[in-house]
Amino acid sequence: MEMNRGDQHWNFHSNEHLNKSSISVRGTLNLISSHLNTHDPRPIIYFGRADPSAYPSFRTSPLFVESLVNTVQSFKFNSYPFTYGVLSARRALAEYYSNNVPYQLSPDDVFLTVGCTQAIEVIIAVLARPGANILLSRPSYPQYESRAAFERLEVRNFDLIPEKGWEVDLDSVEALADNNTVAIVIINPNNPCGSVYTYQHLKEIAETARKLGIFVISDEVYAHMAFGNKPFVPMGVFGSIAPVLTLGSLSKKWCVPGWRLGWILTTDPNGILEKHGIMESMKNYLDITADPPTCIQAAIPQILAKTSDEFVSGLLDLLRTNADILYNKINEIPCLTCPNKPEGTILAMVKLNLEHLEGISDDVDFCSKLVKEESVLILPGVAVGMKNWLRFSFGMERSSIEDGVARLKAFYQRHAKANNHML
Amino acid sequence: MEMNRGDQHWNFHSNEHLNKSSISVRGTLNLISSHLNTHDPRPIIYFGRADPSAYPSFRTSPLFVESLVNTVQSFKFNSYPFTYGVLSARRALAEYYSNNVPYQLSPDDVFLTVGCTQAIEVIIAVLARPGANILLSRPSYPQYESRAAFERLEVRNFDLIPEKGWEVDLDSVEALADNNTVAIVIINPNNPCGSVYTYQHLKEIAETARKLGIFVISDEVYAHMAFGNKPFVPMGVFGSIAPVLTLGSLSKKWCVPGWRLGWILTTDPNGILEKHGIMESMKNYLDITADPPTCIQAAIPQILAKTSDEFVSGLLDLLRTNADILYNKINEIPCLTCPNKPEGTILAMVKLNLEHLEGISDDVDFCSKLVKEESVLILPGVAVGMKNWLRFSFGMERSSIEDGVARLKAFYQRHAKANNHML
Repeated sequence: MEMNRGDQHWNFHSNEHLNKSSISVRGTLNLISSHLNTHDPRPIIYFGRADPSAYPSFRTSPLFVESLVNTVQSFKFNSYPFTYGVLSARRALAEYYSNNVPYQLSPDDVFLTVGCTQAIEVIIAVLARPGANILLSRPSYPQYESRAAFERLEVRNFDLIPEKGWEVDLDSVEALADNNTVAIVIINPNNPCGSVYTYQHLKEIAETARKLGIFVISDEVYAHMAFGNKPFVPMGVFGSIAPVLTLGSLSKKWCVPGWRLGWILTTDPNGILEKHGIMESMKNYLDITADPPTCIQAAIPQILAKTSDEFVSGLLDLLRTNADILYNKINEIPCLTCPNKPEGTILAMVKLNLEHLEGISDDVDFCSKLVKEESVLILPGVAVGMKNWLRFSFGMERSSIEDGVARLKAFYQRHAKANNHML
Repeated sequence: MEMNRGDQHWNFHSNEHLNKSSISVRGTLNLISSHLNTHDPRPIIYFGRADPSAYPSFRTSPLFVESLVNTVQSFKFNSYPFTYGVLSARRALAEYYSNNVPYQLSPDDVFLTVGCTQAIEVIIAVLARPGANILLSRPSYPQYESRAAFERLEVRNFDLIPEKGWEVDLDSVEALADNNTVAIVIINPNNPCGSVYTYQHLKEIAETARKLGIFVISDEVYAHMAFGNKPFVPMGVFGSIAPVLTLGSLSKKWCVPGWRLGWILTTDPNGILEKHGIMESMKNYLDITADPPTCIQAAIPQILAKTSDEFVSGLLDLLRTNADILYNKINEIPCLTCPNKPEGTILAMVKLNLEHLEGISDDVDFCSKLVKEESVLILPGVAVGMKNWLRFSFGMERSSIEDGVARLKAFYQRHAKANNHML
């Protein structure tokens, strides 16, 4: 006899700890998007999404596509990959990174991951021991905070200083650290600020890490995407001062975020990560987590070989122009201030001046009303740790930026406080 | 002034909890493989690896490869995917599964993952609340145990009964469960035993789950790979008795494990998983974890449409023959007993009769010496929860099985106890 459904008791329920941990860019964007007015005939302007690859100007190279087609059509890469990655791909990435640091990396220094998302997952899993803590900037990329919260790894936030080009506040770093601090996360070129750190600043970060007895996690997903006056310097240059774990990905420079291919590189000429068991724990975690598809891994040597200076400089020219337009036009709108012109990445942080607005309570309220009235989607700063700021992507067509900023201006004019609504 | 390197103290060290949790098939195989005699000119026989895709007989269909080439070459799928998967792929999988269950699944019942490995990760993360426990068979697929250990989710093991075709010992299931038990994991067709469960047995499992107030996680990675007398029955058939989460993947039936494309399907006509927050927690976890590549997701509708009965029956014919050969030949060797002829998957469990052997202490010792002397790699049962058993894959060329079993016989003859070394 089947039980009456009404009487049935079920033991399982929602995981509240997980639900609270899972703050993400996409979760926040989904929330904001729920306010979209589906009757607005205008195209949506996606300032909130950091994915230029859908725009014709940022289409990837046919040479990279051809590389992947080659590995798929070969029928040689349909089997499970080796845990830490296909050897030829690890070797090619070791060579590629070694070109810009004073050390020769080996394939053993390279681990392939499912995008940088999984690279972050691996590192947080390895560091999540009871009592340990890591240092993370504010603002930051929220995946670090979410994974740390989920794995119960304590995060201590240091500030980036807008007045100093979003440099790390090294005094606050030293004040935050204690004997249970194990690593500091640096993002360069910086997501979400669009800044690029100097050789000197990176060296100071490495020296601070050494002083504190911690290693550096350098998120270089936007490596080489520097279009201002400062060249991109890989953190691995300072690997002899403090060990460096570098995170990278095909997503940005090669315009294929959907291929989900990332990596972790170790620049540690003194073998300190090995000696302290970090390499062993990384391998152990990689043994119990998913791998990137073999065919995509196997395409890496060809992709790297086919990456021309022209492809990259074309990309940087586009981004430089877009950054200029966004920076100049945004600063014409009284309720918005972009303190630093972006010098890298595809992102900029913009301050929301609520005192110029009527009836807007905070960044989430601003973004919700904006998307409803103007079909312009922006990420509220709270999602990256900066309440009442906004994160803009300028990785899109120039015409979309101009359209989006014009709509922002119209929105401002409708919501401006009575005494300052004139531009 | 740089500090003297000898004086430098570093705070970070190995994550012992992670290191202890990360028991995996590949970790064990790496350990066993370290005993390989590299001077043996014979090819290695990989009974330990469950990956037929590298063998010519198990080559995937050119139609599936063409499907992926099409999505890559279209340039339409280079952007980040939507969190839970590309809609057309989710819709196609919902249709595909609905063909064999009495309910119509919707795309909202489908979540795409990086192989079944990540599907397990998602489910364990969702269930890992302090105090909760899940029921897992012994033997099993070790990824469940490893992820549960890492996320500190308690596992309670019930037995599969070799004398009853590896059926679930339902009495022990009831005895193990309490109010903190949230789910039971069933693997059908069974990894590692090669058994296929009957409609009646699956229904009893669903009824037991309902009685206990828990849901069923049905690992159907080997769905449709049944070549004996029992047809494959999807657990979702019993979704109205207890909610069912089904795990699947392209890896086995389509012979492309390297593509790392898996899924979670929910068959829950009464909406109990939604009501109890499991759907919400799954979505939240998927928001903070890596996605499968967009191009591979997008190829699914084409791949499913191009999957012919001929392709699948050809695969089953090969496996049926291989299973027969392995079963018959293994049972000719006194130190080995295969209690049930495999009826599905590519795997069989074989008992190691140590009393027939001289100087072999256990399954790991057997596998280590075997690989050293005969270049035959088998997975020791301890890796799947059954000490002094062995897990064989028969997903390889028939000639390799025959070669491998002949070497096993030679190994037995060299190591047989004096009084029973004659075959």
